Amino acid sequence: MEPPVTGMLESYAAGRWFRADDEGRPVLDAVTGEEISRISSTGLDLGAMVQHARTVGAPALQALTFHERAALLKAVAKDLMTRKDEFYELSYSTGATARDSAVDIDGGIGTVFSMASKGTREMPNDTVYLDGGTERLGRAGTFLGQHIYTSRPGVAVQINAFNFPVWGMLEKLAPAVLAGAPTIVKPAAQTAYLTEAVVRRIIDAGLLPEGALQLLCGSPQGLLDELTVQDQVAFTGSAHTAGLLRNHTNVLHGGVQLGVEADSLNCSILGPDVAVDDPEFDLFVMGVVTEMTVKAGQKCTAIRRVLVPRDRADAVAEAISARLAKVTVGNPRAEGVRMGALVSLDQREEVRKAIQSLRASAEIVFGNPDRVDTVDADPERGAFISPVLLKAADGAVEPHDVEAFGPVSTLIAYDDVDHAVRLAAQGKGSLVGSLATHDPDVARRVVLGAAPWHGRILVLDRDDAAESTGHGSPLPVLVHGGPGRAGGGEELGGVRAVLHYMQRTAIQASPDMLTAITGRWTAGSARNDDGVHPFRKSLASLRIGDTIASAPRTVTLADIDHFAEFTGDTFYAHTDPEAAAKNPLFGGIVAHGYLVVSLAAGLFVEPNPGPVLANFGVDNLRFLTPVKADDSIAVTLTVKQITPRTSADYGEVRWDAVVVNQDGEPVATYDVLTLVSKEWTD
Amino acid sequence: MEPPVTGMLESYAAGRWFRADDEGRPVLDAVTGEEISRISSTGLDLGAMVQHARTVGAPALQALTFHERAALLKAVAKDLMTRKDEFYELSYSTGATARDSAVDIDGGIGTVFSMASKGTREMPNDTVYLDGGTERLGRAGTFLGQHIYTSRPGVAVQINAFNFPVWGMLEKLAPAVLAGAPTIVKPAAQTAYLTEAVVRRIIDAGLLPEGALQLLCGSPQGLLDELTVQDQVAFTGSAHTAGLLRNHTNVLHGGVQLGVEADSLNCSILGPDVAVDDPEFDLFVMGVVTEMTVKAGQKCTAIRRVLVPRDRADAVAEAISARLAKVTVGNPRAEGVRMGALVSLDQREEVRKAIQSLRASAEIVFGNPDRVDTVDADPERGAFISPVLLKAADGAVEPHDVEAFGPVSTLIAYDDVDHAVRLAAQGKGSLVGSLATHDPDVARRVVLGAAPWHGRILVLDRDDAAESTGHGSPLPVLVHGGPGRAGGGEELGGVRAVLHYMQRTAIQASPDMLTAITGRWTAGSARNDDGVHPFRKSLASLRIGDTIASAPRTVTLADIDHFAEFTGDTFYAHTDPEAAAKNPLFGGIVAHGYLVVSLAAGLFVEPNPGPVLANFGVDNLRFLTPVKADDSIAVTLTVKQITPRTSADYGEVRWDAVVVNQDGEPVATYDVLTLVSKEWTD
Repeated sequence: MEPPVTGMLESYAAGRWFRADDEGRPVLDAVTGEEISRISSTGLDLGAMVQHARTVGAPALQALTFHERAALLKAVAKDLMTRKDEFYELSYSTGATARDSAVDIDGGIGTVFSMASKGTREMPNDTVYLDGGTERLGRAGTFLGQHIYTSRPGVAVQINAFNFPVWGMLEKLAPAVLAGAPTIVKPAAQTAYLTEAVVRRIIDAGLLPEGALQLLCGSPQGLLDELTVQDQVAFTGSAHTAGLLRNHTNVLHGGVQLGVEADSLNCSILGPDVAVDDPEFDLFVMGVVTEMTVKAGQKCTAIRRVLVPRDRADAVAEAISARLAKVTVGNPRAEGVRMGALVSLDQREEVRKAIQSLRASAEIVFGNPDRVDTVDADPERGAFISPVLLKAADGAVEPHDVEAFGPVSTLIAYDDVDHAVRLAAQGKGSLVGSLATHDPDVARRVVLGAAPWHGRILVLDRDDAAESTGHGSPLPVLVHGGPGRAGGGEELGGVRAVLHYMQRTAIQASPDMLTAITGRWTAGSARNDDGVHPFRKSLASLRIGDTIASAPRTVTLADIDHFAEFTGDTFYAHTDPEAAAKNPLFGGIVAHGYLVVSLAAGLFVEPNPGPVLANFGVDNLRFLTPVKADDSIAVTLTVKQITPRTSADYGEVRWDAVVVNQDGEPVATYDVLTLVSKEWTD
Repeated sequence: MEPPVTGMLESYAAGRWFRADDEGRPVLDAVTGEEISRISSTGLDLGAMVQHARTVGAPALQALTFHERAALLKAVAKDLMTRKDEFYELSYSTGATARDSAVDIDGGIGTVFSMASKGTREMPNDTVYLDGGTERLGRAGTFLGQHIYTSRPGVAVQINAFNFPVWGMLEKLAPAVLAGAPTIVKPAAQTAYLTEAVVRRIIDAGLLPEGALQLLCGSPQGLLDELTVQDQVAFTGSAHTAGLLRNHTNVLHGGVQLGVEADSLNCSILGPDVAVDDPEFDLFVMGVVTEMTVKAGQKCTAIRRVLVPRDRADAVAEAISARLAKVTVGNPRAEGVRMGALVSLDQREEVRKAIQSLRASAEIVFGNPDRVDTVDADPERGAFISPVLLKAADGAVEPHDVEAFGPVSTLIAYDDVDHAVRLAAQGKGSLVGSLATHDPDVARRVVLGAAPWHGRILVLDRDDAAESTGHGSPLPVLVHGGPGRAGGGEELGGVRAVLHYMQRTAIQASPDMLTAITGRWTAGSARNDDGVHPFRKSLASLRIGDTIASAPRTVTLADIDHFAEFTGDTFYAHTDPEAAAKNPLFGGIVAHGYLVVSLAAGLFVEPNPGPVLANFGVDNLRFLTPVKADDSIAVTLTVKQITPRTSADYGEVRWDAVVVNQDGEPVATYDVLTLVSKEWTD
């Protein structure tokens, strides 16, 4: 790996590293104020980058299945883990402590691992993702509907904020790769050297196909002009910049899809039930202090508004202040330092200005925005600032409107639960809110009242505190984003994140056509009974539609009696003719549902050792018609979906099972799930 | 019902009918050119309407469960069916034939019925909708994640196109009602009298709560100024107007959510496999002619581009022309008339201009835009126009770009499947495409290639033709919308449509808190074993968390042997110790999964007649640990979700079932589905 932090940062564009030949702009160390690199995109051919993504990256990614893409992600994450120390070292220069860097670097790599796992476990080993069940559009069942998601032949552009140069890039890259979308990363200038180092490592490792990942260091001026219908932009940053992007003609009129995560005035609420000596009180206070000081409060998800019952406002202020007083500020490399620097001196000026605005309706109860003691650092050359806690006057407007993007929060007193919910809503839409309570009724009222205003809500109490990941941490399996001021976008959330990069289409077709298009057997389409029991076929020879149709078997009253006695399931509908006759749904003795499926298994099974290793589950079992004594049943089992496991010598086979009675009426329908060897020789 | 078509159309605002006292603008009969009403919103207090929706409509709707809202919709649909004749009568004045009106009026009412059905069958009888499963966020299971959808405290504004005054209103209203969102309807002026009549009937019938539905006849100038974060606008109309809406400051910066369905240059493709005498050839030709002439081609979903194999272009042109020649144009009230008028003389001028633009690269092969024979109508006073078929020159650009919103289509020749897909994509995003083919391989290649460019794709062949609803018909259970030029929005699609009007939020909490918030029992939260078997409790007394924990039972080798013999399931892993020992997953004889769940039922069942009527299914059954001979199993059954049926004296109870072995390891987990009486007395 070349040393990336000296001189000009490079872009990775259309298959090669590009270095601008002008002077560029200096990027300064947040701690020392010294120049650590320069950045410029002068001369970079943005059109060629977009074209490269579309014509090289997209086809390469889209030739792979979701599982194969997931395997690439896992390999990338593993590789990055081996280089973590280098990234941590660079991260200090952004002002981050080791704890801050863990959120960014380990958090980012962990997100890639998580997405890889979701892609393997919750998506098919295929290139088409099926959304929801098949809809029958006519009585005869010859005309069906099925929603599918397909990959777009476009590029995913990510425009990131300065505060998470690693996580911010990886949390967008991972779902894009799964979706088959090639990515162009545009990092914020202030911390681009760290993003560049990580991208360089990914490129050098050669684990992703060429074109799947490109890097734009410097101004993205003109990039949106290159984008069209199948392209999308995921932006994280200020509401102001989001407004400019929304106003671009290709977004207004050209069909470019824009997703926005903007900083927001997130709140944390102390429940009215929580007394000063309850564990939730301390959990709440610790949560606020953590969110104020991690990344020096430079998080879109930080707590800006601290909502507390009026009669506990002073106690909360005191408890937070006492903890803030112990927070050591200074060089993040120095031992004992808990909070590092803001990302730049400009950013500090912004924060000071915002505090000044907040003081219109709030008083400072802790900290001095203009003075801070620092360890092993010059408080003026580095972008240091003290944590600042304010307390708002009644009816204050500014705390709901002005964001100080630093270690700054404002206490606001509320009167009752409804008031707390109204105050939460005054943020006009937030990424996250939290609530400390041990009262389930308070939890339900606050959460359901505040939910429409939030992308995520954390309920903190003594029961989940030990495992809680905290107010400020987006998790890969949960959506990240929020309405209104928070930008109205959504990221993460497991498979949901992948689908944001794909197109949903409703397909209408006959069963056979639907089977051909989706690669999954659709009820009503052709079955293949070639005389070979499908349990004798390994994945190498098994095909969608392969079928075994059983002979019929009569279910006698003796069978039902015996099953009741043997299993102990003596429910009256199976054992007591008189009582069963009164049952409004049966009107007489019926066979146990479990008897029906047990006998069905006896009818379809092939008993000898073979490629079918195990039945690991059953899905969507529905009993449709009661089976009476002396009815006869037969079962048809058909291969519905085949999912080879990338990391095993077997795969999952989903079988469509239909049990019918002597009149051909469906008695039970379900999916049988089996594990089947990839190869098998007798 | 007052006669609504004379004089000034009224708005329904903040609980009363409002009539502007200025002159307004005249609305003309499309067939006769005579004035049939006037329209104006002068003096209407739009702010009061929005406020009324938020403070009266939203709380009233949101106090109801999804099932209760669905029941309202069903009642509305039933009531509207009784007034259909009146609506048909008015509809003639829009230029629509009875067949056209069926699409609009019956189609609209049918959509309400369908949505009501989906709301009942696929949503809980509650006010919170759970999205996906519970995510375990820590190893110990004390910290969980669950996505929920909640209703927004805002208003749903619909701004509709002139072409479907009934369907366009109802297809947006139905999901909004289900979502708990109060609606303001803004119809297009040209056909507002029909929308007004339907809204008036809904209001008069008093079936929806006050504030759930308001009507704005006339200019909506200033309406968006009143909207904010929790409000949304669903717009159907031109890409031009969509651009203006996207440019409104409350959309750019104020968090108002805007969904757009715009007209698009939809294509229909004749598969390369289809010969002139194949049934798919006729189906294709009939489809094109239908889409050209229904609503005189004034449909966002009409076929504008007809893509055909080069060597069959002439044959297709002849076949379409021959059928078009039989289409009688004229007064839609007159017998034998197949195509009525465009909505207005202005609209006819627009269509003529568009045809002129198309002629830059296409020649007319059927019809004269300036001349048409009409039955029982003056072709100049009414907005009549002939169907016009064009044929494009190679490489023509205009047919992919210029939309003639009338009975106009353009034939385009393609060379091979890839070329056809490329041409389809040249529309830059469409609502719908269709393909006539009987070749599964062609279907898969064309559909997957074209899917990213389409919201819906129909595959038409001899198998589904009899039940096909055709290229141009959006269906309530399938999404309607498309990327790019089609607006990038999504409507309909069953429950998907409802969720578009709600907010998704990720909740993080302990199991107990999650149970309290969602109203559904969450694994890990408290169970209530009060000594009464929960099968003895009716819905009136059954509570979430009620539990029965069984005694253990030993599963002997004799049990396994016997079960194999009795059911016929003699799979070697249950019967042949030597072969079973070689199974890589079991390593010895194991009990049948069906034996385990059958015995579990014997352990938890309460045999006597009681409120539990039937077990109607099992979901998500997974066998987690093999049960060996002489293992013992016990089962715990816990009430997870209770869904009373509105229309029956019983409801559905979903039970969480966990079977563990003697070491406490989970052996099987599943949901048991039962029907339970609302009341029960022994």
